[in-house]
Amino acid sequence: MENQVENGYTGNILRVDLTNEKTSIENPDDLFYRRYIGGEGIVVYYLLKELKVGTDPLGPENKLIFANGPLTGFAIPGTGRNSVGAKSPLTGGFGVAEVGGHWGAALKHAGFDAIIVDGKAKDPVYLWIKDGEVEIKNASHLWGKVTGETEQLIREELGDKNIHVAHIGPGGERMIRYACVMNGLRDAAGRTGMGAVMGSKNLKAIAVRGSERPKAADDEKLKELLKFFNEKLQKRNAGYFQFGSGGDLLEPFASTGNLPYRNFRDGDFPNPIDLDPRTIKETIGLEKDGCFACSIRCKKIVKIDSPRVVDSLYGGPEYETLGAFGSNCGIRDIAAICKANELCNKYSLDTISTGVSIGFAMECYEKGILTENDTGGIKLEFGNDDGMIQIIEMIAKREGIGNILAEGVKRAAEMIGKGAEKFAMHVKGVEIPMHEPRYKQGMGVGYALSPTGAEHMTNLHDDSIAHGRVKAYQGSLGILEPLPVDDLSFKKVRALIYITNWQYTYNAVLMCYFLFWSKELITEILQAVTGWNTSMWELMKAGERISTMARTFNTREGLTSKDDWLPERFFEPHTSGPLAETAIDKVKFENAIKTYYAMMGWNEEGVPTREKLQELELDWLEST
Amino acid sequence: MENQVENGYTGNILRVDLTNEKTSIENPDDLFYRRYIGGEGIVVYYLLKELKVGTDPLGPENKLIFANGPLTGFAIPGTGRNSVGAKSPLTGGFGVAEVGGHWGAALKHAGFDAIIVDGKAKDPVYLWIKDGEVEIKNASHLWGKVTGETEQLIREELGDKNIHVAHIGPGGERMIRYACVMNGLRDAAGRTGMGAVMGSKNLKAIAVRGSERPKAADDEKLKELLKFFNEKLQKRNAGYFQFGSGGDLLEPFASTGNLPYRNFRDGDFPNPIDLDPRTIKETIGLEKDGCFACSIRCKKIVKIDSPRVVDSLYGGPEYETLGAFGSNCGIRDIAAICKANELCNKYSLDTISTGVSIGFAMECYEKGILTENDTGGIKLEFGNDDGMIQIIEMIAKREGIGNILAEGVKRAAEMIGKGAEKFAMHVKGVEIPMHEPRYKQGMGVGYALSPTGAEHMTNLHDDSIAHGRVKAYQGSLGILEPLPVDDLSFKKVRALIYITNWQYTYNAVLMCYFLFWSKELITEILQAVTGWNTSMWELMKAGERISTMARTFNTREGLTSKDDWLPERFFEPHTSGPLAETAIDKVKFENAIKTYYAMMGWNEEGVPTREKLQELELDWLEST
Repeated sequence: MENQVENGYTGNILRVDLTNEKTSIENPDDLFYRRYIGGEGIVVYYLLKELKVGTDPLGPENKLIFANGPLTGFAIPGTGRNSVGAKSPLTGGFGVAEVGGHWGAALKHAGFDAIIVDGKAKDPVYLWIKDGEVEIKNASHLWGKVTGETEQLIREELGDKNIHVAHIGPGGERMIRYACVMNGLRDAAGRTGMGAVMGSKNLKAIAVRGSERPKAADDEKLKELLKFFNEKLQKRNAGYFQFGSGGDLLEPFASTGNLPYRNFRDGDFPNPIDLDPRTIKETIGLEKDGCFACSIRCKKIVKIDSPRVVDSLYGGPEYETLGAFGSNCGIRDIAAICKANELCNKYSLDTISTGVSIGFAMECYEKGILTENDTGGIKLEFGNDDGMIQIIEMIAKREGIGNILAEGVKRAAEMIGKGAEKFAMHVKGVEIPMHEPRYKQGMGVGYALSPTGAEHMTNLHDDSIAHGRVKAYQGSLGILEPLPVDDLSFKKVRALIYITNWQYTYNAVLMCYFLFWSKELITEILQAVTGWNTSMWELMKAGERISTMARTFNTREGLTSKDDWLPERFFEPHTSGPLAETAIDKVKFENAIKTYYAMMGWNEEGVPTREKLQELELDWLEST
Repeated sequence: MENQVENGYTGNILRVDLTNEKTSIENPDDLFYRRYIGGEGIVVYYLLKELKVGTDPLGPENKLIFANGPLTGFAIPGTGRNSVGAKSPLTGGFGVAEVGGHWGAALKHAGFDAIIVDGKAKDPVYLWIKDGEVEIKNASHLWGKVTGETEQLIREELGDKNIHVAHIGPGGERMIRYACVMNGLRDAAGRTGMGAVMGSKNLKAIAVRGSERPKAADDEKLKELLKFFNEKLQKRNAGYFQFGSGGDLLEPFASTGNLPYRNFRDGDFPNPIDLDPRTIKETIGLEKDGCFACSIRCKKIVKIDSPRVVDSLYGGPEYETLGAFGSNCGIRDIAAICKANELCNKYSLDTISTGVSIGFAMECYEKGILTENDTGGIKLEFGNDDGMIQIIEMIAKREGIGNILAEGVKRAAEMIGKGAEKFAMHVKGVEIPMHEPRYKQGMGVGYALSPTGAEHMTNLHDDSIAHGRVKAYQGSLGILEPLPVDDLSFKKVRALIYITNWQYTYNAVLMCYFLFWSKELITEILQAVTGWNTSMWELMKAGERISTMARTFNTREGLTSKDDWLPERFFEPHTSGPLAETAIDKVKFENAIKTYYAMMGWNEEGVPTREKLQELELDWLEST
């Protein structure tokens, strides 16, 4: 190992100044990568270093950062991912989303670990990156096109059907606040509105083609590790292999109350099996799709010809999408949900935020806060599947009520008034994902505290530590005792912090959660690729570092402990179903938040202390 | 792994109530061992749980705890160690020492992981433990005997020459405050006065014989790991293999100023090679000795016939002993040092505290604070080797000045008065080991903060991270940048904390430092032996937990941040030699202490916060 340490790990970062149409390349040193790893570690580093406090998220001074992890582009299952980040137009704080597919790997093969996009192009442009060469190209003819057309036109124009494209549809162009960035047509960097930032810069797409495979510091060791990895892969991930994301869990989620129903209000969603991935596979499923180098192939593809036509090019609904457009909108028609998914991928809209925005509108309609006058004649009741589809179109076009819902539920509620705020299911402006915090109460704390608003990935799924298997799965984190799903004691907070810190590492490494590999194996793979004499312990510290950086960014942008809270709804029980008598205890919840601060080394206002910054080698943040 | 988790790891703890002559056996569960591991983790747990605040360290209510680690007794190199702990008669706080040899392994083979000794025997006794059976036996005939005689008499009396004995000589019987507990005749649980506690209980010895080898949860895995372990062992530890402790470092230590000279005052010790382990090997060294199952065999054995006779039975001087009786007393005669070592092992006196006490007396003599009237006619100048030998005898017998020096330098200085305090080189009452804190300044901070007083083992050796090799050796802790030996920035404090926390784990596992094995390999060996799905990260947390428990014990006993300080001498330069212009900067030092508190999650007074206790699953300490 000693020799490798001296070699160092480096990577190229491409800077693109759209205002001045200039590009340049930087090459940070080994220590930079080891401290911040990749993905959102790189994103938050540059946002902290370079963004002026108070920057308009949709102004030219925001920076849109695409970042790979150190494993991206290697033939390692689960690593076909990249991050997209910027100051978020939804939260005004740290924005980032992870996305799968093939684009990140292609970027690495073209010679880059990250792209920092600054400024704003006068007219629409796209970037063309091929094996180290970068071109800023006119995209006026692409502007207004949906993602499927854009990808096709770029490939035709550049004469290469193997080009991979990260891009926005009309949703991003029109700066829908929760617009996403699409990798190809099926993979979305969904949350926190990164597509809106891309649109604000007049940047339609980044097309990439690369031919150079990266080399590991210790190729033999990597091969050996991957052998072990692949031999065990299929067995450990049976559910995802067979049914894609959501596995065989949607129906059980409904039975516990975890699956949100009618804008998180009710709890008795009938026959959830109708929306379960198992049913999708049996009825409308085609073959599945996967990310670069991954044999899991968790991505559903569906095809429906009538009565609704759903284009299989845009893939099928993930679990979150099934919940957001399905039960959350009181909708039981799987074809409608698949259509909604197709439209979101076409227009580059985040399916969670879109679905929750429509659920919000449906509840407002039911309460008379919105009427047919507002909706353009649509009877926007829960369960109106045609209405839902129409509203998605209106959002993408910013037409009528769609122009209000395009701002996200927080701003929409403010615009609508009349008490609509009560029905706006968000944290820090980001719509809440499809896991009920009255059921998973630790996740509720995680929603409240996540620097990117309500977030289900970098979070604790309470059911994972409510069972006897906890020692096997979380043992290496010292989480040894099962805790009830509704426990909010310091033990739950501790578990949330430990698990979340590892997930920050995961997001920086950009390994897919669905592979469930041991922390030790991830560590060893990282050692083999980078040559770092690193450890799971150091990687946990990296996760803590990134979490603390994200918190610091938000603090700097004016977010306070007041923003660490859930909508009032969650402190009351469901109207019906398994959680009809279960609410979150407000005192326990507040106590959990305060305990989280203290355990993280933050002060009572949730601001990281000087010594915590120093311990994490973030002393440079004191003067920013 | 899943199956093993359910099996659990347990061990037996023997309780001995000497007052009532009763014994009993407890069997804590897997979770207890996983949280507190072993060694000083077990010691501090029971002291916190069971000792009344304000207990007299030399009274019957103190508890003397012998504790193995989970690996003790397995045929694993480096694990032939055990801890001995109690409330310390030197500090009034947490006392513990680690010791090698064969006794701990024998205890494990006899069926016990630990012994908790409570109360006080009416007349001297010894314990006889054989394969699960325990007997309290009369030791009146052994009282007053030196260790060599005691061991021999017990073996004869019990008719088994393979019995291993942990015991005290006259030093422990007379409650010299820094008396040690000897494993056999060559291995000392040296620091913090555990031999005095043993003496206060009228407990002369614990004789052990066991025949049952422990079984690993995964024997195949353990064998495989040990194969790797043994193949690399010899290469990695060349210096210790050849020369024993101190390796080839004594001479270089003198050249940097690290080797204390004349009670830490001067810096120009000439011809240090005369005391170097290399010279010892060439001139007076016999074969070397080792601990149970260890192939390093780092323990010197020396034999000198004239003019001084040194008995080879008691081994040879370790590095610390060479420094304490050698340069620290201005003594250059290796035979005198070997004799001092022999006497300390015979009488069960800690060589560091004894040597530093004599160095203190020599400086007092030089300053006229002590005179020939006080010393019984001895001209106690630096360099008086015969005088030194005489004083050791007087300490062991508590005769004349020896009765004062038997209390340790802190109390001796108070008794002597006349400004003697200035020359008392101690922290919290424990004499400072043979590493100059003006040279290793991070270690100086560690001396000040160690819960067991000045302590060189659970500490940072600044030179280890001052060189380019830092990434290879400390990389897994994320310590990636070399730091000068005299650096006292937050980076040094961070390194001190990380390294110390791992050392607390090491001491709980009871793996020998001299093997320098990787943290990952230790983790895997522990997994194989215990069946725990643990990780280096969880083990680091265990170390942090034990450190925090020790701090909490001290806080409870009334120690405060005022006790976290060094003697004034260290804030001035040496009078001569390489550190003639180097002192510790008081402001930087104080700042480092405060930074340490905050980084550890302690408040400004150095008291662990409620949330830090909770994070470490030490919530039960809040109510103790």
